[in-house]
Amino acid sequence: MEFRLIDRIRERTAQPRDDVRLGIGDDAALLAVPAGMELAVAVDTMVEGVHFLPGQAAFDLGWKSLAVNLSDLAAMGAEPAWALLALTLPTAQSAQARADFVDGFADGFAALAREHRVALVGGDTTGGPLAMSVTVHGFVPPGRALTRAGARPGDAVLVTGTLGDAVAALHLLRTETASGSDAPLLARMHRPTPRVAAGLALRGRAHACQDISDGLVADLGHICAASGVAAEIDADALPRSPALVARFGAAAARDFALDCGDDYELVFTAPEADVAGIVDALARLGCGATRIGRIVAGEGVRVRDADGHWLEPAHRGWDHFPT
Amino acid sequence: MEFRLIDRIRERTAQPRDDVRLGIGDDAALLAVPAGMELAVAVDTMVEGVHFLPGQAAFDLGWKSLAVNLSDLAAMGAEPAWALLALTLPTAQSAQARADFVDGFADGFAALAREHRVALVGGDTTGGPLAMSVTVHGFVPPGRALTRAGARPGDAVLVTGTLGDAVAALHLLRTETASGSDAPLLARMHRPTPRVAAGLALRGRAHACQDISDGLVADLGHICAASGVAAEIDADALPRSPALVARFGAAAARDFALDCGDDYELVFTAPEADVAGIVDALARLGCGATRIGRIVAGEGVRVRDADGHWLEPAHRGWDHFPT
Repeated sequence: MEFRLIDRIRERTAQPRDDVRLGIGDDAALLAVPAGMELAVAVDTMVEGVHFLPGQAAFDLGWKSLAVNLSDLAAMGAEPAWALLALTLPTAQSAQARADFVDGFADGFAALAREHRVALVGGDTTGGPLAMSVTVHGFVPPGRALTRAGARPGDAVLVTGTLGDAVAALHLLRTETASGSDAPLLARMHRPTPRVAAGLALRGRAHACQDISDGLVADLGHICAASGVAAEIDADALPRSPALVARFGAAAARDFALDCGDDYELVFTAPEADVAGIVDALARLGCGATRIGRIVAGEGVRVRDADGHWLEPAHRGWDHFPT
Repeated sequence: MEFRLIDRIRERTAQPRDDVRLGIGDDAALLAVPAGMELAVAVDTMVEGVHFLPGQAAFDLGWKSLAVNLSDLAAMGAEPAWALLALTLPTAQSAQARADFVDGFADGFAALAREHRVALVGGDTTGGPLAMSVTVHGFVPPGRALTRAGARPGDAVLVTGTLGDAVAALHLLRTETASGSDAPLLARMHRPTPRVAAGLALRGRAHACQDISDGLVADLGHICAASGVAAEIDADALPRSPALVARFGAAAARDFALDCGDDYELVFTAPEADVAGIVDALARLGCGATRIGRIVAGEGVRVRDADGHWLEPAHRGWDHFPT
């Protein structure tokens, strides 16, 4: 029953916060935004067979459904606070199977929520094809948010962490070639780490920022479009994890890194003079940052290899509705 | 393509508000809650085949997906402000069919949004089974929200508007007996009117309030459970529309009114001494209010007929996951 499922989720995700005046259990939650803060709000949906493969572990789905949303807050430089969950579950399942799924999902959601002190304040459970839509709220001081508009010619382009692990993991699953030693790659796909601390550290430093969910070229392209500039990327500069290079070799790892949707790293631009300081700061946060190119006048994103040849745009990012 | 669909929706739903610092088009929206106000937030999902019949008009779906959420804000006595939309669309459709659906959906959403000055500030469009999840935000002064907890023995129980039209319309559609003269009933189902003004008028007057989406007995039952009280309802006191009585007769209309999920009226409790003033105030707002029973000590909701006989609880509300 709807109310019992919500109760299960509420119990497993309990996260006390003084700014939650009324949580799950009424027609709406009542929340208090701290004085002087603006609210950053984002929503993202995951649908079985589109955003994840059938049979994926409930824990991972709970984790990831929150992670992809916290990644949006990270990209704005916002501090996470509250989430709402709309969960659609197949009605053909037995009540026990549904309860088991909900428990696992809530545990995965809660594991990441605890790390960021996110309170689940509302939700809706309905019957239908398996899907989950999460809305997240975060705080940011007025005028301090990171947006896509603000990149300037002369800026360096940087990314956090490493690129390509998640899309390589998807490749392994689709070709049924994953083995036990691929766990680090699979973890990047199933339990991505939203770069929340990096986003906060980039306030006042990055000119423009966005998280990478559709692919480096596609998402950096959004920054370029919003800022009225172009970007040039050095393919060989893309940071790749030791696990990725060991598994596929440097060349294939580069292609995965270019095609890197689903890693949920941040791509951002900053003045060249600030690059060293940013790299130091993000290294201290554990995710690191790598300079991968520069912003120039013009439009679009171009990628060149080590010999200076421009690569064909084979990787344009994920498009649900190709036209 | 995702961004073009969102652009279509953005253009058709444009609603300028000073408190929207950054709307659709970045990783998150940036919003400013007015000083001294708390935020009320709710989410509701509609899934094809579960919450609406296949083939329903896109305009009506756009309207209703917002209406059911504004109804939650109304039940809290909150003033609507912002919405986010997660829209999942079948990928098998042609691009033209998808664009037509999105245009109609956005127009229906916008028609109701304009009435309440609601700005669509964010969204996500994905491929998958047709479904829509809307998150709404509203404002309420601290301590002034209407909740489910607060009903007291001795309170009168009232409802806004009339009950039963929407469930009667669903009956007509399921039995394929709807005719042109049933348009008023069908409109109640397809384009419900959220009782936002009534909710605002009930601040400081109602002890407890909730909107009716699952059925009168089920939803009033939530008030009773949250307040630790019981309710006694007089079935013959339930307000029924002239259209409903004309179509089905007084007795069947009473059964539809008891079974009244999907009307999105408010059920609330208030001191007996305030009933006349509340009825006057809500009559001036156009929706009216009717006293249908009383709160007593105990638990649960009982319904009696004109002869004072207690009715069997045949109508317990919609349950997606019966156990």
